[in-house]
Amino acid sequence: MVPSMTDTAAFTDRTSLEGSIEETEAFAPKFNADGLIPAVATDANDGKLLMLAYMNADALAKTIETGEAWYWSRSRSALWRKGETSGRTQKVLALRTDCDQDAIEIVVEQTGPACHTDRRSCFYRKIQKSEDGKTILAFTD
Amino acid sequence: MVPSMTDTAAFTDRTSLEGSIEETEAFAPKFNADGLIPAVATDANDGKLLMLAYMNADALAKTIETGEAWYWSRSRSALWRKGETSGRTQKVLALRTDCDQDAIEIVVEQTGPACHTDRRSCFYRKIQKSEDGKTILAFTD
Repeated sequence: MVPSMTDTAAFTDRTSLEGSIEETEAFAPKFNADGLIPAVATDANDGKLLMLAYMNADALAKTIETGEAWYWSRSRSALWRKGETSGRTQKVLALRTDCDQDAIEIVVEQTGPACHTDRRSCFYRKIQKSEDGKTILAFTD
Repeated sequence: MVPSMTDTAAFTDRTSLEGSIEETEAFAPKFNADGLIPAVATDANDGKLLMLAYMNADALAKTIETGEAWYWSRSRSALWRKGETSGRTQKVLALRTDCDQDAIEIVVEQTGPACHTDRRSCFYRKIQKSEDGKTILAFTD
């Protein structure tokens, strides 16, 4: 396997920051047991939630370096530049992390629909109760 | 261990839906290997991303049933009604799931700040490059 150019060494080691993750300027993202961190894409124009995907350290570093959204495809086990085949690219206008540094917000200028189903957002179904008390989905887009 | 009142049986079995997860009205949430699904809370007033937390099947079912946000605390290994000690409750105005049904959006009326650091949103730091090329965080709140 070819060594990665952009690995976790690009970020601060969390063990050096114990107790101050929330108030530090050091970026020490916490990847899960699979080496992934959830990334929430929101639309720069109106703040709308577009999608949730995952980044590994490489994808996160590439996103920071290139200003375009890169994710890790869990189904294909591959780095994935959003829009590389569909043209539905995401230009990064801001990146944020949360208090625990275990999630990423990626504020994007979205080209075309964000969802592979051709909808603007992946969150196009509401969860609701049916008349007989079952939990079902209702399409809103 | 006391059996759960609200377990995964509250939802549709995904194996019965193979190939139609994205276009079905059946709610068949996909929990990860730890039995959790990420839940993204957005503010009903302006759509702002407030926080990302996790729900297990119990938390998801309770959120649907009660109209208040319940999560699973990974650090405390316990069900957690948002605001039960802090008063920072979240009234659910809408719940959505995404195309793959492996993430939840919870649109909330947030009482007080969403973040335990007393900030409105947990995403109060931007990721950016410093002058010497390091990736650091800058506080925006």
